[in-house]
Amino acid sequence: MALFISFEGGEGSGKSTQVDRLTDKLAQAGVPTLKLHEPGSTKLGLHIRGLLKGRPWRGETISPEAELFLFAASRAQLVTKLLEKKMQEKRLVIIADRYADSTTAYQGYGRRLPIDLVNATNELATNGLMPHRTFLLDLTPEEGLRRAGSDKRELFDTDHDGRLDEEGSRRFEEEPRAFHERVRKGYLTLAESEPDRWAIVDASQHEDSVFESIWGH
Amino acid sequence: MALFISFEGGEGSGKSTQVDRLTDKLAQAGVPTLKLHEPGSTKLGLHIRGLLKGRPWRGETISPEAELFLFAASRAQLVTKLLEKKMQEKRLVIIADRYADSTTAYQGYGRRLPIDLVNATNELATNGLMPHRTFLLDLTPEEGLRRAGSDKRELFDTDHDGRLDEEGSRRFEEEPRAFHERVRKGYLTLAESEPDRWAIVDASQHEDSVFESIWGH
Repeated sequence: MALFISFEGGEGSGKSTQVDRLTDKLAQAGVPTLKLHEPGSTKLGLHIRGLLKGRPWRGETISPEAELFLFAASRAQLVTKLLEKKMQEKRLVIIADRYADSTTAYQGYGRRLPIDLVNATNELATNGLMPHRTFLLDLTPEEGLRRAGSDKRELFDTDHDGRLDEEGSRRFEEEPRAFHERVRKGYLTLAESEPDRWAIVDASQHEDSVFESIWGH
Repeated sequence: MALFISFEGGEGSGKSTQVDRLTDKLAQAGVPTLKLHEPGSTKLGLHIRGLLKGRPWRGETISPEAELFLFAASRAQLVTKLLEKKMQEKRLVIIADRYADSTTAYQGYGRRLPIDLVNATNELATNGLMPHRTFLLDLTPEEGLRRAGSDKRELFDTDHDGRLDEEGSRRFEEEPRAFHERVRKGYLTLAESEPDRWAIVDASQHEDSVFESIWGH
């Protein structure tokens, strides 16, 4: 059975950097790895990524519920078409840049959709397949926002902040800090509820120190 | 508050015909109507319809779970962007050609996804907004299949039978009757569990008689 590791965290927390570093280090040690990036990693997932990032429907924003289901569709496709098979491979290390916990943190805590229904969606989308270990790169929203850059449009145009037409971005710009505070609190709540799976890493450190902590685990 | 009516039933049960007849008759009587067709009726919904009907990814079928979530995304968008607002209009009659019950019947009973998780998905997608009255156009799969035409490829290429590349259609062709029997049984189970909302209409009658039954209600 493969080893399944996921990385979670807010904007600017350095997930992609650490995913790349871990993948490279394992590859150098001769360990086969598979890197996943959600939404994506399947043909349907890539299409949904484009759909969430692009703005093909001027004047019609994607509702928080529809956004949740699009992420879930992408994840379900990933699980059934790729992940469940890859989990059968011995020695393989699967490293995911975001997984189901992102949905709970962003759509559940951030957008305040009912947590029990978000959990049911995740359960169906993952078919119960969760990572063996999840690294939370924890950072204050202030620091994350600073790192992600001062351009708010760009900042909010990320996978899990969803649709960004005029209506959407106005709403976010009115209370961005509060949204990101809820996401952070959501992550910490998840980590506390499952301490055996989660490892909280202080992402305010230099990226070398962050990687040392991860590698130590 | 508007009156919300939905039509449900298997393939070849004559839903679209009856939806059109009811809409026309109400319009002739001077009653304002709004006809909905899922997936669709919003820009995102139309895009999702194309995605479920088209085959842009050769070799990658859409998993039953991903299919469920794509229908749910379309429905959530419909509810938040259109239906909730239209429900505020007095005298309006909203007539839906399929709604959340289709998901329970097709993805839950037909594809055997866990009913409690399908229900949770529907609850989130509809925000609890269900029709005042639902007509089940009940028909044996034999008769429905006959009416829908003998070309199986075409028959199965309908909204709720989902993805139809080689893998999918082989699977359906192996046990189409059983799938459609489960869908029918699912509908009848739903109708029995909520007799105040559902009206079961014998769809094997002539379409004039079917319409008389519906109009009588």
